[in-house]
Amino acid sequence: MKFSCNKESLAQACVNVSRAVISKSTLGALEGILIQAHDGKLSLSGYDLEFSITTCIDAQIEVPGEIVLNSRLFTDMVKKIPTETVTVSIDDKHLANVTGGSVSYTILGTPSEEFPEIPTVESDDIIRLPNAVFKDMVDHTIFAVSLNDVRPTHMGSLFEFKNGLLTVVSVDGYRLAIRREPLNIPFETSFIIPAKTLKEVTALFGEEGTCEIHAVKRRITFDNGTYTVYSRLIDGDFLEYEDTLPKNEKTLLKIEKRELLSGLDRVSLMISDRMKYPIHFTLNEMTMEIRCDTPLGKASDVNYCPFEGESIRLGFNSGYMIDALRACDCDKIKVRFNGPLSPIVIEPEEGNKFLYLVLPVRIK
Amino acid sequence: MKFSCNKESLAQACVNVSRAVISKSTLGALEGILIQAHDGKLSLSGYDLEFSITTCIDAQIEVPGEIVLNSRLFTDMVKKIPTETVTVSIDDKHLANVTGGSVSYTILGTPSEEFPEIPTVESDDIIRLPNAVFKDMVDHTIFAVSLNDVRPTHMGSLFEFKNGLLTVVSVDGYRLAIRREPLNIPFETSFIIPAKTLKEVTALFGEEGTCEIHAVKRRITFDNGTYTVYSRLIDGDFLEYEDTLPKNEKTLLKIEKRELLSGLDRVSLMISDRMKYPIHFTLNEMTMEIRCDTPLGKASDVNYCPFEGESIRLGFNSGYMIDALRACDCDKIKVRFNGPLSPIVIEPEEGNKFLYLVLPVRIK
Repeated sequence: MKFSCNKESLAQACVNVSRAVISKSTLGALEGILIQAHDGKLSLSGYDLEFSITTCIDAQIEVPGEIVLNSRLFTDMVKKIPTETVTVSIDDKHLANVTGGSVSYTILGTPSEEFPEIPTVESDDIIRLPNAVFKDMVDHTIFAVSLNDVRPTHMGSLFEFKNGLLTVVSVDGYRLAIRREPLNIPFETSFIIPAKTLKEVTALFGEEGTCEIHAVKRRITFDNGTYTVYSRLIDGDFLEYEDTLPKNEKTLLKIEKRELLSGLDRVSLMISDRMKYPIHFTLNEMTMEIRCDTPLGKASDVNYCPFEGESIRLGFNSGYMIDALRACDCDKIKVRFNGPLSPIVIEPEEGNKFLYLVLPVRIK
Repeated sequence: MKFSCNKESLAQACVNVSRAVISKSTLGALEGILIQAHDGKLSLSGYDLEFSITTCIDAQIEVPGEIVLNSRLFTDMVKKIPTETVTVSIDDKHLANVTGGSVSYTILGTPSEEFPEIPTVESDDIIRLPNAVFKDMVDHTIFAVSLNDVRPTHMGSLFEFKNGLLTVVSVDGYRLAIRREPLNIPFETSFIIPAKTLKEVTALFGEEGTCEIHAVKRRITFDNGTYTVYSRLIDGDFLEYEDTLPKNEKTLLKIEKRELLSGLDRVSLMISDRMKYPIHFTLNEMTMEIRCDTPLGKASDVNYCPFEGESIRLGFNSGYMIDALRACDCDKIKVRFNGPLSPIVIEPEEGNKFLYLVLPVRIK
């Protein structure tokens, strides 16, 4: 096997497919990039058994072949080659020689047969999604994905394509995040994408262009024309989230997001990572009081604040509320309360682009 | 005790004196900032028993007094106050109330009697040093300070004021760094400043203005007009560094610093933190070869390179050589070799502003 190609293109491809490579594995091949040189094309793949990234770049292929090279070492070598073109040749004993100008590197590769096969996904039902929309919906819901595996289906986000709408839902048992966007596809489908996959794909694809999604049973692929990403899907039933959304409200607060957020931020100073204390939140007589007492000290922020409906006093986890408010991408929001033990609902003042729900905590 | 002052000035002063505050201590007062309000001035100090920072800011003092407040909490509170002015009042029970606008914080302070006294240093021999020179000399020698306490005097840098010259020297047993700068003071003196102090003072003082140094026996103060920094000095005899500098050379290499550095950088790829292997360096027949063989693989960089004197082949620690080269602030350097077991000397091609010395390692 022997090929030459542009150093920058190869380095960029290596850096990107390395996102799917495991840094430490008992199976050495999984720490490497699969390099396949055939028909004037060079294909590079990283695969961690659940998630893979593949891309093709132009190369001058003298001898076709396949090899697996340690991801970190190979990427760094290519980066450090001082010439525009880098040449890679592999001998019968899998010794790889990477050269350019005055520099020569030699490392031992792994036969491509030891690299596990990446599953393929073929489906006639294709979803085309602008990357900007995809990234926006993920960025504003992923914080609510569960980090523990008590309910595996909650370790990813539900993607629901129905009635000309894409709805993305994340939930972790204490809060819930919903984002909605009009999207016409001629069929209905839904699946749960692992949070790790969502983070990697949105980071790799950015906001330019469109991605093509194929999903079949437990597998999904994303393709932006340059990179193909494969991932397993999470199997099982997601929360019936529609049932959890409160229909009524006893108290309605319309407020600048920034105002509520800065009040919470100031008062949260008394909460440390090791000491979780709830925020005491009171709406009464045209006043909003945000307060927190902990062993560190006391903090309070009191502001004039008209609201509609009953007075209310409740407690909530400051971090959950701050996450939800930060994810609101509008200035004016409405916050709906239905008594001190009913979920708090945060929505835009106009429209229904997002809905965040935070469970209150019982306070004395 | 009660005072009001500008929020930004107070926040800035807190952030800076906090550099001398210990984050975790069995003596609670050491986790705090000493605040002293007297005669229309507010003084703030942090002190970790070896090092202190003190500054004064303007304040409107209603009731004079002293208190120690937790550094992290107090700094964050002041930062989060939404108004231009912040008011701090302390009651008889050392409860501190920090307020501004809608926000009110209450934390428990510590009586100032529990704060250890910061030593004073008084000397008629004053050294005035431009901060830019001070920072430059520290930045380019501090990498060679010893990190282990086998020889405590090597855990700081020697400052030697002699013959119209300031010489700064750091050494760790494997390499040595010298920086020289003309500086006229009417007396001779030398002392060893702990590396931590040098880092903190240069970071705090930056490159503007001048600092005034008083050093007496084991104590030193630095004053830039806004901040006063106290530190202990390291006691003991520093290496007689003049004796360690090779007088002769068998091989002389004049080279662009960048060229040598990039060759070393490329070849060092085969060295990881866990596996220390020496670089093999050869000058022979107008050629410079930099090579490294490790269990990860082989790397070599071979370039045309004229030199003066004998051919040479030796080994050295790549990290030590790279540190020294990075610290050279000129493009053209000369490297002097005196056989494979004699220290390698790196100097500017012109002048004697700096001298770096790296010990070679024995290779097969």
